[in-house]
Amino acid sequence: MSARGGIDLGGTKVQAVVIDAQHQVLGQARVPTPTEGGPQDVADALAGAMHEAADTARVELGSLTGIGVGSPGGVDAGAGTVRGAGNLPGWEGTFALGPALQDALGVPAHLGNDVQVATDAEAALGAGRPFHSLLGVFWGTGVGGGIVLDDRPWIGRGAGGELGHVVVKEDGRVCPCGRKGCVEAYAGRGAMEARARKLVEEGHHTDLFKVMEERGRTRLTSGIWERALEHGDDMATELIDRAVAAIGTGVASAINLLDVEAVIIGGGLGIRLGQPYADRILEQMRPHLFRDDRPPAVRVAQLGDLGGAIGASLLVPGAAPTPAAA
Amino acid sequence: MSARGGIDLGGTKVQAVVIDAQHQVLGQARVPTPTEGGPQDVADALAGAMHEAADTARVELGSLTGIGVGSPGGVDAGAGTVRGAGNLPGWEGTFALGPALQDALGVPAHLGNDVQVATDAEAALGAGRPFHSLLGVFWGTGVGGGIVLDDRPWIGRGAGGELGHVVVKEDGRVCPCGRKGCVEAYAGRGAMEARARKLVEEGHHTDLFKVMEERGRTRLTSGIWERALEHGDDMATELIDRAVAAIGTGVASAINLLDVEAVIIGGGLGIRLGQPYADRILEQMRPHLFRDDRPPAVRVAQLGDLGGAIGASLLVPGAAPTPAAA
Repeated sequence: MSARGGIDLGGTKVQAVVIDAQHQVLGQARVPTPTEGGPQDVADALAGAMHEAADTARVELGSLTGIGVGSPGGVDAGAGTVRGAGNLPGWEGTFALGPALQDALGVPAHLGNDVQVATDAEAALGAGRPFHSLLGVFWGTGVGGGIVLDDRPWIGRGAGGELGHVVVKEDGRVCPCGRKGCVEAYAGRGAMEARARKLVEEGHHTDLFKVMEERGRTRLTSGIWERALEHGDDMATELIDRAVAAIGTGVASAINLLDVEAVIIGGGLGIRLGQPYADRILEQMRPHLFRDDRPPAVRVAQLGDLGGAIGASLLVPGAAPTPAAA
Repeated sequence: MSARGGIDLGGTKVQAVVIDAQHQVLGQARVPTPTEGGPQDVADALAGAMHEAADTARVELGSLTGIGVGSPGGVDAGAGTVRGAGNLPGWEGTFALGPALQDALGVPAHLGNDVQVATDAEAALGAGRPFHSLLGVFWGTGVGGGIVLDDRPWIGRGAGGELGHVVVKEDGRVCPCGRKGCVEAYAGRGAMEARARKLVEEGHHTDLFKVMEERGRTRLTSGIWERALEHGDDMATELIDRAVAAIGTGVASAINLLDVEAVIIGGGLGIRLGQPYADRILEQMRPHLFRDDRPPAVRVAQLGDLGGAIGASLLVPGAAPTPAAA
């Protein structure tokens, strides 16, 4: 049996999976991302999660054909390094994550960009299977993007796919990235929460933070936003409407450039809010589409929380399935 | 000797060239695009221009290995048809331009999108030669765009590259395309002229139309804009500054998505205003670039007015040069 590993390295959690040649998940494990220490501590956490996933899969780690890792920051796949992963502890510089994992686990490790591998997973095994070219949009704390053209990922010089930083309004709202008017400035869950807190300070009413406290959370999770929308909370409705409009405008600009067949909406909010909101994104795209007579398909990601780790496992040579027939 | 033909079918002129295997222009001809009649009349004009170009090149038409045509509208290269070329007389429907030219000239005809072939020409033979991936920006009456990735054109489902209709400002100025806030709404020479006329109606002063009349023109050509800028005309300066900002924002969004190596600025205004304005476009891009530490090269197109026709000639099988080494 030919199994492989995949790890999604996120800012809050590390998700590891073991997957067979038919892309079935044999085992998985999730551990918190270290918040202190440095890159070696993060590498240790990844190795631990991979060990645990192999145990639950009842697979010998050494028998894996390889493991793939989807990482934030600047990934140099050839060198096996990650540079400037700002959300991870002490990771301002460059760290040889691939070699570190190879040493710890005894199997070859392959690195890729986290959002791109999640896009690749949807393209190969999820909602993107019917298409040869697509844009992945990951609507969560930030807004990530990935591009697949002719069944291959396109990342340019390594930093492509930044749909969240497509500008929708010159001199617009300040984005968490420090720039102005980006999609993420309006649509990122982080930016929306900051905006909601500011509106509350200014005296506006919302139940968002009441729901948050009831649930014992300190952040506005996707579930909290969903609940507030269901209850007709005005502020939540307005902020989500604005987010949908910004994503629609940014995606339409991307479609006018790339004219891909499909847009796959993933991420915490994207998956939680589901197809009705994917449809609303399409409606917001329409007024900006240069070819509005045949818009791309806009669909919700299918692989859920494991998409990133499954996509990472596709980095292992020989793992990726053959593209759908034209 | 192995020569080929290329035709750039524009809204105001038809440019034909005959080119040898070393991509040297052997002869050329330019005729006005018919303003009346229908697609067959346009095809006749193309055939006439090609005949004339062959005569000036002292090459037998029948000896050409083929001709390429860069056309506006919806090009179906496989079928040899052009659909909905709105700037051309009576061309709302679909016309089999390829077969019509083949009949008239007796050599195989190959169709491509006008802006894309101009981009391909710059990539293969012009300012884009050092690069494997680039964005072509054609700043003229409208704002066109073309994309080259890994030395190959990317047009998506046939309508990609529309940089002019990337949105820079939600609910922004109305674009000649009817949508709002597109790059072209601020930067297209057509949109800028309409804006200038409106500002004059509102009582603002400019020498733009005086220069136009002195030169016996009825439109604000690129040369007229250049002259007004040189003389410090306030309105011209403001409108061009706004155009440069819009192009900068739109191109930055495209770079955040595609992360290509270079941006090639062509088109009537782009070529006329030259590298100083390409540099200014880069400065306007910077605040929006997600990776602002290594912006793409921004260079002026090198092939000038003949770029479109030269690019069209590259559609002839076997004509395209081998890409530069990696």
